[in-house]
Amino acid sequence: MSKEFTHEIKVYYEDTDSGGVVYYSNYLKYLERARTEMINSIGLSNRKLLDEYNTLIIVKSCSIEYIKSAKLEDKLQIFSSIESFSKASFIVIQYIKRDNELIINAKLKLVTVNEEGKPRKIPTVLEKNLN
Amino acid sequence: MSKEFTHEIKVYYEDTDSGGVVYYSNYLKYLERARTEMINSIGLSNRKLLDEYNTLIIVKSCSIEYIKSAKLEDKLQIFSSIESFSKASFIVIQYIKRDNELIINAKLKLVTVNEEGKPRKIPTVLEKNLN
Amino acid sequence: MSKEFTHEIKVYYEDTDSGGVVYYSNYLKYLERARTEMINSIGLSNRKLLDEYNTLIIVKSCSIEYIKSAKLEDKLQIFSSIESFSKASFIVIQYIKRDNELIINAKLKLVTVNEEGKPRKIPTVLEKNLN
Amino acid sequence: MSKEFTHEIKVYYEDTDSGGVVYYSNYLKYLERARTEMINSIGLSNRKLLDEYNTLIIVKSCSIEYIKSAKLEDKLQIFSSIESFSKASFIVIQYIKRDNELIINAKLKLVTVNEEGKPRKIPTVLEKNLN
Repeated sequence: MSKEFTHEIKVYYEDTDSGGVVYYSNYLKYLERARTEMINSIGLSNRKLLDEYNTLIIVKSCSIEYIKSAKLEDKLQIFSSIESFSKASFIVIQYIKRDNELIINAKLKLVTVNEEGKPRKIPTVLEKNLN
Repeated sequence: MSKEFTHEIKVYYEDTDSGGVVYYSNYLKYLERARTEMINSIGLSNRKLLDEYNTLIIVKSCSIEYIKSAKLEDKLQIFSSIESFSKASFIVIQYIKRDNELIINAKLKLVTVNEEGKPRKIPTVLEKNLN
Repeated sequence: MSKEFTHEIKVYYEDTDSGGVVYYSNYLKYLERARTEMINSIGLSNRKLLDEYNTLIIVKSCSIEYIKSAKLEDKLQIFSSIESFSKASFIVIQYIKRDNELIINAKLKLVTVNEEGKPRKIPTVLEKNLN
Repeated sequence: MSKEFTHEIKVYYEDTDSGGVVYYSNYLKYLERARTEMINSIGLSNRKLLDEYNTLIIVKSCSIEYIKSAKLEDKLQIFSSIESFSKASFIVIQYIKRDNELIINAKLKLVTVNEEGKPRKIPTVLEKNLN
């Protein structure tokens, strides 16, 4: 397991639904923001990955468990770490907490592809710095 | 004023917020769906406009008035017509009703640009068929 | 396995991202629209379930596999069926196709709760008509 | 004109569309986040306004001009100030910049209502601290 990256977000009206809680697909947005911040924290960006490394990171699968509901103006902490790397894919473990309460946990398989969508070896700069 | 195009949508959970009503920016999504359907109804599409006419339609300004609130599972009718065409822009009037009640009304200025974002004369096929 | 419900949607600009394809969390919106339509098709609605049966349907977990990418103005067919019912939960199998191509497949666990979020037996009208 | 409040956001994939830029309705989300932060900065929150003051803030109208396009991973600064207060409404001026470039500017009319949606005098705590 790699080191753990933390990112905090706040729940705004846009994230909630008329059930009074965060709409279930919006947690996937939070997870992606946290993965982008993880990449930004090592001096990379999605744009740089595409421009300099001809690499796009694509979600191949996602399993998410909804434990508790988050509400308007909650502050949530998103924790991300990489479980394992393969040649052109990696497994990310992410979970979201509201202080001590677990809100969701998730496991995703990400793959690296080139601009034409063909599998592409994970750039060394990515694997080395996230590990 | 051009002929009027009608498109109907249903309000889903994704569209609502914890205030119990449709979130204010989501009406702009409905408006854009209706404009896309207007274009589709004359045998065009956004992809075709880009591929065959090197034209993208961009929103330059939008004024929207919120009259009544729409709620979960409401059926809404979106009415769209073109007020006027200029060389590389046109004005669209759109409003949304729930049967006889007016929900929002809006006025937008759209511009046609090429892939590099430079102004581009409105393709004849677009102007002729929407008018 | 219950009978299969079908719902068709079109991909609009709002659904896509700058990678040129449908953003990964937006498929969950499509899946929820299809589940709502499934409920509407048997004469129920989320509002009616809440008002008359004091029942909310909540997603407890979701596993989704991304097979192919959907693009702007694609027409997608969403297929939904219920694998099994328990006392206060049920498993839904959903997949999305673009004609003959499989775009995503998903498996969700849904639970029925009352307005206070406590587990609630699945209303008979729901189970009987979806089965 | 009141003092000016600043809030910074980053553009994530969720915000962009297949045109390669931020989708036009998503700027309204940014504007709302900034208004919420403005309210939070004076020790209030939307939840507190509802729970303690029986007040909801609703957007009555919005005019937005799109000047330049924002792109993936841009950092944007949102500036908000209140132009004027009436009994149960106020006018907010907001604009978004990417460093020195103006991206959008907007003017909104907000109204304060109670939980039943009836006009409600702006709570003193809100008017006094935002002015």
